[in-house]
Amino acid sequence: MHFEVKVEVSPREGIANPEGSTIERALPALGFVTAGNVRVGKVIRLQVEADSSDDAKSLVEDMCSRFLSNPVIEDSLVEVLEE
Amino acid sequence: MHFEVKVEVSPREGIANPEGSTIERALPALGFVTAGNVRVGKVIRLQVEADSSDDAKSLVEDMCSRFLSNPVIEDSLVEVLEE
Repeated sequence: MHFEVKVEVSPREGIANPEGSTIERALPALGFVTAGNVRVGKVIRLQVEADSSDDAKSLVEDMCSRFLSNPVIEDSLVEVLEE
Repeated sequence: MHFEVKVEVSPREGIANPEGSTIERALPALGFVTAGNVRVGKVIRLQVEADSSDDAKSLVEDMCSRFLSNPVIEDSLVEVLEE
């Protein structure tokens, strides 16, 4: 079966997030004074072939730890969206 | 009130996604032969101060069209997560 999977890879708490900090510094100049705590990560959407939703999830979690994210500095969240 | 907002910025259909293509080419070499159609985007999490959830959403949608995304080549999806 085909599954559509979404992975969110974001910097761990305490790890510097320069892209987020840059956005945060720029927002007030554009009139957005009420926003803060900006953090930027990656989102990866892919399709996998697996026997079940659980299999698809564990396959993509394996991909994350080996390749799609750096588990030392990044958290990844795998979500199986649909068949 | 404070709202936690998540924005997913992803390349529009038909727009080249070199990061996704590179991941897709690399996966078989790592043993992941059942994955395909990989697309990579950005996810931005931020906190905003607004009167209501709808206000928070429209504020962040305004940010997206002016600053956080390039509407010509990217779609953005705003989701207000919680107060």
